[in-house]
Amino acid sequence: MLDTIFNHRTIRKYKSTPIEDSVLEEILKAGTRASTTGNTQVYSMVVTKEKELKEKLWETQFKQDMVKEAPVVITFCADVNRYTKWCQYRKADPHYHNFLWFFTASIDALLASQNVALAAEANGLGICYMGPTIYLARKIIDVLDLPKGVVPVATLVVGYPDEDPPLTDRLPLEGVVHYETYKDYTKEDIDRIYAEKEAMEETRELLEINQKETLAQIFTDNRYKKDDNLHFSRELLDVLRQQGFMDHEKEEDR
Amino acid sequence: MLDTIFNHRTIRKYKSTPIEDSVLEEILKAGTRASTTGNTQVYSMVVTKEKELKEKLWETQFKQDMVKEAPVVITFCADVNRYTKWCQYRKADPHYHNFLWFFTASIDALLASQNVALAAEANGLGICYMGPTIYLARKIIDVLDLPKGVVPVATLVVGYPDEDPPLTDRLPLEGVVHYETYKDYTKEDIDRIYAEKEAMEETRELLEINQKETLAQIFTDNRYKKDDNLHFSRELLDVLRQQGFMDHEKEEDR
Repeated sequence: MLDTIFNHRTIRKYKSTPIEDSVLEEILKAGTRASTTGNTQVYSMVVTKEKELKEKLWETQFKQDMVKEAPVVITFCADVNRYTKWCQYRKADPHYHNFLWFFTASIDALLASQNVALAAEANGLGICYMGPTIYLARKIIDVLDLPKGVVPVATLVVGYPDEDPPLTDRLPLEGVVHYETYKDYTKEDIDRIYAEKEAMEETRELLEINQKETLAQIFTDNRYKKDDNLHFSRELLDVLRQQGFMDHEKEEDR
Repeated sequence: MLDTIFNHRTIRKYKSTPIEDSVLEEILKAGTRASTTGNTQVYSMVVTKEKELKEKLWETQFKQDMVKEAPVVITFCADVNRYTKWCQYRKADPHYHNFLWFFTASIDALLASQNVALAAEANGLGICYMGPTIYLARKIIDVLDLPKGVVPVATLVVGYPDEDPPLTDRLPLEGVVHYETYKDYTKEDIDRIYAEKEAMEETRELLEINQKETLAQIFTDNRYKKDDNLHFSRELLDVLRQQGFMDHEKEEDR
């Protein structure tokens, strides 16, 4: 268990070897064993293997090739649709198309996804979380036919690794852990916490390639830019509206 | 690994035995090995052990006693504060106080939390995810001194179990898995998927105690009620505003 966690590497190159059905079923079942709000299981896992569909998903993931190359793509969705339908068919009056339940369902979906990721790795598979899912959620909704009450929140590509990358660096534990209450960071704290990352050979190379003075500038100017952050913030909120998770905004207007 | 995942039970009764520092450090480190957006680690873990603080957190968790009884409470926060400060001290211009990054940071925090949960269980500890965290986030922010850019999204209580409950039921895999694209549920699907849950002895007991006709009615009328869902939806969005994650709303007004 702990070995699996501590050996996690994101895999970006995959063999074309398919995943055995029994293994796929086990890792999906592992997802269902995660904690879930009141045992409602307000999530769905959409397992995509067809070439044409994977190509459409590849387009929603900024055309990162592991989406086409890995044999399986799993889209984890916040999903109140099934739970709502169950209530409706059982003479109950459901009210889960709201922001609280979007977030509740997202928690359920994300805990399930991490179980699937670890169970996959324990089976010798590699995984990669695809960041763009929440950027281009609207397109994924179209590709996967997601109904109202369902929003994709994470995508895992899964397959047998065709590379063996080293462990990625992490900040020292004191950088992310607070004891008793939150102690805000002084400049000295930031200097100490980021010292190792900033001294890495990889960082020096990035600065040279990108012609930047600091690593942070590569993040703010190149990777996660202001205009993109604002655009995709509005877009994500619009997707929540489209999928029916902000209906209480209308009720406020009454 | 797989044993840990498949044997997960939520633990609600804890021994007072403290957690060894080395074990606590290992499970927190396990959290940091989870996938994280662009290796930004936009989360924090606040580890609370002090009796007085745990009592205040107990109040924010609808006074569920495991929060007082377990030796350690870990609050997982979406956190762009440290990352933003790093950018500021490095002549970079950060723009992460927006909804996209609230959700990005929430994903990071939740994947870390599930690693911590599983690493704890692999060490013989028990865990319980506390649902009310996103309901009463504003109070947790006060208790833990969380600054702007930080929102609690999940709470784990951790300690040595003082009970050995059975595995909880889950829907059959077909209830939460879709192949290729999403196939919406017919009444027959819902009947089949929920059949086992509805036939359980536990369900019959709940119906009798609550004097309800269907299990779904217990969820909609007693556990997760319309007015609460609407109230806490607005409250959670207000907390995001308070912590600076909806600043782009103002920019829209310009």
